[in-house]
Amino acid sequence: MLHNDSIVALATPSGAGAIAIIRISGEEAITIGNTVFKSIKNKDLTQQKSHTLHLGHIIDNQKTLDEVLVSIFKGPNSYTGENTIEISCHGSTYIQQQIIQLLLRNGCRMANPGEFTLRAFLNGKLDLSQAEAVADLISSDNEASHQIAMQQMRGGFSNEIAKLREELLNFASLIELELDFAEEDVEFADRTQFHELLNRIEFVLKRLIDSFAVGNVIKNGIPVAIVGEPNVGKSTLLNALLNEERAIVSHIAGTTRDTIEDELVIGGIGFRFIDTAGIRETEDHIERIGIRKTFEKIEQAQVILYLLDSVQYSVNSVQFSIEIEKIKNQFPLKPLIIVVNKIDLLSEDQINVLQEKLTTHSVRLIIISAKNNIGIDALKNQLLSFVNTGALRNNETIVTNTRHYDSLLKALDEIQKVKYGLHTNLSSDLMALDIREALYHFGMITGQVTNDELLGNIFANFCIGK
Amino acid sequence: MLHNDSIVALATPSGAGAIAIIRISGEEAITIGNTVFKSIKNKDLTQQKSHTLHLGHIIDNQKTLDEVLVSIFKGPNSYTGENTIEISCHGSTYIQQQIIQLLLRNGCRMANPGEFTLRAFLNGKLDLSQAEAVADLISSDNEASHQIAMQQMRGGFSNEIAKLREELLNFASLIELELDFAEEDVEFADRTQFHELLNRIEFVLKRLIDSFAVGNVIKNGIPVAIVGEPNVGKSTLLNALLNEERAIVSHIAGTTRDTIEDELVIGGIGFRFIDTAGIRETEDHIERIGIRKTFEKIEQAQVILYLLDSVQYSVNSVQFSIEIEKIKNQFPLKPLIIVVNKIDLLSEDQINVLQEKLTTHSVRLIIISAKNNIGIDALKNQLLSFVNTGALRNNETIVTNTRHYDSLLKALDEIQKVKYGLHTNLSSDLMALDIREALYHFGMITGQVTNDELLGNIFANFCIGK
Repeated sequence: MLHNDSIVALATPSGAGAIAIIRISGEEAITIGNTVFKSIKNKDLTQQKSHTLHLGHIIDNQKTLDEVLVSIFKGPNSYTGENTIEISCHGSTYIQQQIIQLLLRNGCRMANPGEFTLRAFLNGKLDLSQAEAVADLISSDNEASHQIAMQQMRGGFSNEIAKLREELLNFASLIELELDFAEEDVEFADRTQFHELLNRIEFVLKRLIDSFAVGNVIKNGIPVAIVGEPNVGKSTLLNALLNEERAIVSHIAGTTRDTIEDELVIGGIGFRFIDTAGIRETEDHIERIGIRKTFEKIEQAQVILYLLDSVQYSVNSVQFSIEIEKIKNQFPLKPLIIVVNKIDLLSEDQINVLQEKLTTHSVRLIIISAKNNIGIDALKNQLLSFVNTGALRNNETIVTNTRHYDSLLKALDEIQKVKYGLHTNLSSDLMALDIREALYHFGMITGQVTNDELLGNIFANFCIGK
Repeated sequence: MLHNDSIVALATPSGAGAIAIIRISGEEAITIGNTVFKSIKNKDLTQQKSHTLHLGHIIDNQKTLDEVLVSIFKGPNSYTGENTIEISCHGSTYIQQQIIQLLLRNGCRMANPGEFTLRAFLNGKLDLSQAEAVADLISSDNEASHQIAMQQMRGGFSNEIAKLREELLNFASLIELELDFAEEDVEFADRTQFHELLNRIEFVLKRLIDSFAVGNVIKNGIPVAIVGEPNVGKSTLLNALLNEERAIVSHIAGTTRDTIEDELVIGGIGFRFIDTAGIRETEDHIERIGIRKTFEKIEQAQVILYLLDSVQYSVNSVQFSIEIEKIKNQFPLKPLIIVVNKIDLLSEDQINVLQEKLTTHSVRLIIISAKNNIGIDALKNQLLSFVNTGALRNNETIVTNTRHYDSLLKALDEIQKVKYGLHTNLSSDLMALDIREALYHFGMITGQVTNDELLGNIFANFCIGK
C-alpha cells in the first residue's frame, strides 16, 4: 500500500443537506487545496496556521463551483496524523461531485473505505482496537453500545491488554535469555512472579471473555419472543412500550429507527421483539412446519414474554394455575416472563385475587394493562434484569468485537499452556514458544502484530470517508 | 419572531456517515457550546479567536458523548451574522441526537426550516433573492441550474434590480416633491431622463421575464417524448445516452441520480425522457383511453423524438418519404426530431441512399446506430439546440424562481402604466402611486419590502439546518 499520496472522500452522509464535508488527507493535501481554492482575503492556504478556518471559493478553470469554508489541520495534529483539509461546501450532490472530481484532476485519488482511519492507525494516532471502535461508534444506535464504543475508542480495552502484553514480553525475554545460558542452568525469570503474572493475565482474559456475552447482547440487541393467543393485547403492549421511547426522539429530524417497528431501546439496551403469533393453534393442529418455524424463532429468542388475557382467568383461578404450570413446562430452558394483560377490565377485587394467586408460583409473573399503561415500567425492569448491566454501570471494559473475542480465547488457551508448562517444569525453549503464541494473539488485538489481509478485512467494513 | 435566542440543528444530511455537523447560532452560541465542551487543552471557547478549530469532548453530566471538533465563528463574520459554532461529531444518528438534546437542555431551541438563512437575511448578510438561491443551490443537480443558482447567490440578479430600484426611487422622490409645490407647477424630475430610465427598466424587465422560459427549463429539465414502434431501439438509445453520462459519476459515492433511469443531463441541461410506447398500435385500435393517455404525455413534452428502424425503409425509399411526411403532420406544433436507427445493419450504399433522401425533407432528421454509438453526439447537439443556452453561455442573469417571475411581471405592468402616464401627462400624484407600486414589486424580489408571511413561505421550503 502506498501511504503518502493524497486521498479524498465525502465525509458526511450522501444526499442533499445544508452542508457537506469533503476531506483530503496526505502530504500534499493543503497544497492541492490551495490550487483549487481562492480565499476571500487572498490568503495562501499553505501559509496558514493549523486549526484555522478560511472562507472563499472553489474555482474550476475560472468558474466558481461554490462558496466554501476550508479547515486546515497540519500533521501530526490531525485525525490521520497527516496534513488534512476539510472543505465545507453547500450540500448539493452535484456540487459534492464537481468538487471531488476537480480534486481528482488535481492530484488526489478516491479514498478506499476506512482509509482515513487506516492511516490514523498506521501513523500511530490510534491502535487497532481503537480504530475498530470508530466504526462501532458510528453504527451505535443506543446508549449502551455507544458507551462501550466510546470506552474502547478512548483506549480502555487495549490499554489493559497492551500493559499485560508488555509484562509478558518482559518475561518472555528473560526466559529466552535463559536459553542462551542453557548449559549453566540459570533462571533469570523469577518463576513465582511469573506464575503470579500468568494468574493475573488469566483472570483478566476470563473476565474479558465473559464480558463478550453482555457485549454481544448490547451490540446486537436482545431477541425477545412475544408468545400468546390472538387478542391477548400483544400489539397494544408493543405500542405501549414503543410510544414512550418514540416521544423522546420525535422532535429530532432524521431518526431512522422509526421504520423498525419492533425494535426498541429500554434503559439503553436494544430489544428485538419477535412475532410468534399462532403458537397455541399450531399445538392443536398437525401443521408441523408451522410449529417448527415458530419454535425456531423461540429458539433464537433469549427471553420469552408469554401474554395472557386476565379476563379469561379472573373467574377460574384453578384453571389459571394449571395454565401457568403448563407454560412453565413448555419453556423449561428459557428465561420466561408471564404477562397477565387487560387488568383494566377487572374489578379491584378480581385484581386482588389475581395478585394473590401470582405470588404462589415460582415464575416471573407480572400483571399489566397495556391499554392504560399500567405495569409497563415494571415489565421493562423485568426485561432489563436479564441483562447483566453491572459491568456497564461499573464502567468495566466489555468486549463486543468477535475478532477480539476470538483472539482473547486463543490467548487464554496459550496462557493456560504456559501455566501447565510452568507447573510440569517444561523446558524453557518450549515454554518460550507458547509465550510467543500468546503475545501474538495479544498483539492481534491492539495491532502491534498485523498484516495487510487483517487490515484489509477490518477497514473494508468502514464507510468511505472515515 | 424572536431572533436573538440560540438555535441548533443538524446541518449535514440525516443518516449515518463518517462525520456530522451540528450548528448553533445566536448571541449565546459560543457560551452554550463552552458549557458542554471540554477542550483537550483546557481552552475556554469564549476566549478563542473567530475562525479557529478546537479538539475536545462533549460532556453530558460527566459522561463523554463524543470526541468532536468545534469551529468558532464570531458575529458578524459568520453565515448568519451571529455568533456561531459548528460541532463536527462522529456521524452516528444516536450521537447526533444525544448532542442536540444536550444542547436543547442547555438553552438552545430547535431551528425551524431555513432559519439559519433567514437570520442571515435579517442580519443583512444576504438579500432575499440570494437567500432563495441558497435553496436552489442545494437542490441543483446539473451544471446549468448550479450555475444560475451560484450567479444568483453572488447577487448578479438582485444587484441589477436593486440598482434600477434606486434610480427609480430617486425619480419617485423628485416627483413626490413636485406635489408639495403643486401650485407652482415646477418639474424637479427631468421628464426626458425619466422616460429614458423607464425605457431602460422596461428593457431589463422584459429580458429577465423572457429568461424565465429558459430558467424554468433549466430548473425542471426538458420533457422529451420518445415515440416509436416496439423494437426500433428505444431502450438501446436511452442506454447509449445514459451510459456515457453515468461513466462520469460512477466512481463518486452517493450519486442518487442512478435510480432515475430516464432522466439525464446533456451539456449541463436536464432532459426527462417520457415513455410513449404503443402510440402506433393505439392508432390502429379503438382503445381511446390508451390513445388519450399517450397523447397527454406527448402534450407535456417539449420535444418529440420519433424513432424509426432504418432497415424497414432501406429498400423502399418512397415508403420512407411517405412515412416522414405522415409523422410531420402528426406533430405539427412540437419541435420534432426523426431519428433513423440501426444503420449498423445497412450496407454503406444503403446508408448513402438514406442520407441523400434525408436532405430532401424539411424536418430535423438524424441517422444513428444506438448499438454502435454512431450519431449519438449529433443527436445530443440536436436536443441541446432546442434550449436557448445563449444567455447561459454569456453569463446573463436568468430568472428561475416563480416568485421572482411573478414580481417582475407585476413590476413591468406598473412601469408600463407609468410610461403611459408620462405620455398622457398624467398628474404627478397619480403617477407617483404607480411608481410606488413598481418600487414595491422590485422590493419584493430583493427583500427590501417584505412581511412575515412572505418570509415564512420562502424559508419553510428550506431544509432544517440551513
